[in-house]
Amino acid sequence: MGREQRVAILGATGAVGAELLTLLEERSFPLASLKLLASPRSAGTYLTFKGERIPVEPVSETAFRGVDWVLASAGATVSKTWAKAVVEAGAVMVDNSSAFRMDPEVPLVVPEVNPQDALRHQGIIANPNCTTILMCVVIYPLHKRIPIRRVVAATYQSASGAGARAMQELRDQSRAYLEGKPLEPRVFPYPIAFNLFPHNSPLQENGYCQEEMKMVNESRKIMGSPNLRLTATCVRVPLMRAHAEALNLEFEQPFPVEQARQILAEAPGVVLLEDWQQNRFPMPIDVSGKDDVAVGRIRQDISEPKALELWLCGDQIRKGAALNAIQIVELLSVPQPVTA
Amino acid sequence: MGREQRVAILGATGAVGAELLTLLEERSFPLASLKLLASPRSAGTYLTFKGERIPVEPVSETAFRGVDWVLASAGATVSKTWAKAVVEAGAVMVDNSSAFRMDPEVPLVVPEVNPQDALRHQGIIANPNCTTILMCVVIYPLHKRIPIRRVVAATYQSASGAGARAMQELRDQSRAYLEGKPLEPRVFPYPIAFNLFPHNSPLQENGYCQEEMKMVNESRKIMGSPNLRLTATCVRVPLMRAHAEALNLEFEQPFPVEQARQILAEAPGVVLLEDWQQNRFPMPIDVSGKDDVAVGRIRQDISEPKALELWLCGDQIRKGAALNAIQIVELLSVPQPVTA
Repeated sequence: MGREQRVAILGATGAVGAELLTLLEERSFPLASLKLLASPRSAGTYLTFKGERIPVEPVSETAFRGVDWVLASAGATVSKTWAKAVVEAGAVMVDNSSAFRMDPEVPLVVPEVNPQDALRHQGIIANPNCTTILMCVVIYPLHKRIPIRRVVAATYQSASGAGARAMQELRDQSRAYLEGKPLEPRVFPYPIAFNLFPHNSPLQENGYCQEEMKMVNESRKIMGSPNLRLTATCVRVPLMRAHAEALNLEFEQPFPVEQARQILAEAPGVVLLEDWQQNRFPMPIDVSGKDDVAVGRIRQDISEPKALELWLCGDQIRKGAALNAIQIVELLSVPQPVTA
Repeated sequence: MGREQRVAILGATGAVGAELLTLLEERSFPLASLKLLASPRSAGTYLTFKGERIPVEPVSETAFRGVDWVLASAGATVSKTWAKAVVEAGAVMVDNSSAFRMDPEVPLVVPEVNPQDALRHQGIIANPNCTTILMCVVIYPLHKRIPIRRVVAATYQSASGAGARAMQELRDQSRAYLEGKPLEPRVFPYPIAFNLFPHNSPLQENGYCQEEMKMVNESRKIMGSPNLRLTATCVRVPLMRAHAEALNLEFEQPFPVEQARQILAEAPGVVLLEDWQQNRFPMPIDVSGKDDVAVGRIRQDISEPKALELWLCGDQIRKGAALNAIQIVELLSVPQPVTA
């Protein structure tokens, strides 16, 4: 292990904040110190880490002094507000928000895909969108073998992507539904229990929502393929914390299914989960709380000789957010490969 | 209205059977008589129709005498067992199962798409797969204007597609989940509450499941396009009774979005539901208990100039099964257009 790191979590009281704490503990991350930061509204409480109660302090100009890493997951506005102070304090911000992802000066990193990009940071490294991370971990190893020409994606996204309050809303509405009571949307614009709807992020001029355009733009940057053709339909479904994606991948050349399966079976951060006899493929409950993205149903597209169909599930809070951020820190501070 | 019809429902105690009763009542269908049939196991009970208790009789060789139409929704085995007796009794079977759908002698009909095919029946007319019906109602009007070259579909399918017991299972498991109890799959092979999985129909040699191949083969027959290229990923999601589908449609020529919108706004059996300001598009709760298939998010595919993306929701039990069957009967017995 490398030298111990001084870490601050900005947005410690949120869903991703909680997962960061879990992971730092689980992975025996070499911590010199741990600081928990949140907005003045959320500060003042305590969180437990390795059996110890740690106070949640209000974020301030001076909060980043003596810190090596700031893991930020309190939204784009908060990240933009404090980025300068973090860098001036000599710390590196690994930012889970969308604030800096498309900034050409800021690396956007999935450690299994473009670890080399992390090295050229200037104090900020962006953690990609959750749906994009899960997709890139799976499609990049295939893309390296035979370049992808076009992706048609449809997603099945859990409530956790909208935070802890959205997860509670799904729980509350589900209970109300079963009791025959009306569902009252507060976090999501429409009922989520026993329902689903196109992703609620703002719509762009071109008819795509922000979530879909993140998949397009971020995957191009992460995979170093500025011309990658990708279209997506993102959908919120009544799941707690894992996303699923149906991906149609068209390659420059036909891609033998067995070769794709072999590549994915060996790909870092990916687990192949296929039992064709039992019709058993990745499900959200398989990956909840797990690090790897599960992939299966890899099959030749019967409508297009150069295309494959596949299906993946990944934990949105873990690999889709908190784990990826910690892997970035490990990549730059722990002198051994991040992935097996 | 035409002359009154003598109708029998085979499989009266199932989810589709219940919906057939509801629809016959709602639509003031000109009934001369109504006979309810079920397996000996389910027979012996009573169902209510227009305030009247009607006995559910066990199906038998002689049960179809004096009947004009047999609406069958008790599964493929039951339909195959009784089809000959139905035809010999001089009745017409409108069969909701997969038993005869791909039989070249049997018309496979969506009244909004291929009503003319119904005329050439020889005693059996097949009602298509639910997912296929919902898709064809929406894509056929576009296909008529500019031929579709390829469809990439991803579905979000409700529990109702597996019957009333599956809907109860979703309810029971959801309650168990909220109470922290284990989920016990009985109808579905895997937990459905707060989970989802690739469609549980048997897998074919080519890696597609039966449900997906129904979309491929049935849509070709219904739309009269034997070479239509279509690939699909079908997924069960924790919804009660409405399906959703994300469709990527590639045409022979670029299809102006406004023209597609116009066509769908006027298409029979379709309702356009798009509020781009409010990010408000079709949701399962919009269409539950409704006749029309709701379509929205019609947009130019940014990855392919000749493709459009769109999103639809439709009631699986209603237009996906019971309503379509009754429309077929109306088409052949009621001397006026079925659709407005």
